[in-house]
Amino acid sequence: MYVKKIESIPKVKVSTGAKAWKQVLISVQVAPNFAMRRFILEPGGSIPNHTNTVEHEQFVLNGRARIGIGDKTYEIAKNDSVYIPAGMAHWYQVKGEDPFEFICVVPNKEDVIEVLEEGA
Amino acid sequence: MYVKKIESIPKVKVSTGAKAWKQVLISVQVAPNFAMRRFILEPGGSIPNHTNTVEHEQFVLNGRARIGIGDKTYEIAKNDSVYIPAGMAHWYQVKGEDPFEFICVVPNKEDVIEVLEEGA
Repeated sequence: MYVKKIESIPKVKVSTGAKAWKQVLISVQVAPNFAMRRFILEPGGSIPNHTNTVEHEQFVLNGRARIGIGDKTYEIAKNDSVYIPAGMAHWYQVKGEDPFEFICVVPNKEDVIEVLEEGA
Repeated sequence: MYVKKIESIPKVKVSTGAKAWKQVLISVQVAPNFAMRRFILEPGGSIPNHTNTVEHEQFVLNGRARIGIGDKTYEIAKNDSVYIPAGMAHWYQVKGEDPFEFICVVPNKEDVIEVLEEGA
């Protein structure tokens, strides 16, 4: 199967997030080096501050969000690209009334996720 | 620079294509394992049948195209994901009046491109 329709791909809840869903578009079973996923965060949705042991390469498909990468925050929107180095803390908070959707590509390596403590 | 606006990224002509442009969103200089690019094919645009020595993971952002992968052809459109294994012949032909835009992720490995002969 070289071509997939988005409707054919199951949505899985992101356990660490709120109102956050993931679709695996091209999986580690199919591709030798990296996997392509689509994330959908509903209005009001978020993913808390966390680290991964793998890097992320992301592209925003729809909507707006406030995100943190390390000690910086950004307002991002459709057509922005985002690079998050391995080990760097990051979080997402949807802004506005549209779902925030993005592509996220990760290498086919073990990923250990660590959710960080909330700030005071 | 962890976040980039699409307008800040130069468009480079795809030498093998017609009316075809490429933007490098996340480059091999930035990312350790793979690079993220965006391709824009104008209405009437195309990329001829060719092989690469690296695989492609793609996601359609806008528009419609007829594509060939190996000996199969597909009509693809916004939100379709496409996996092209290393070494497999593939081509693109834009359909309709909208630009055909897609994300294409490739591993950070040497890529030898071979354009194939036109069919009889």
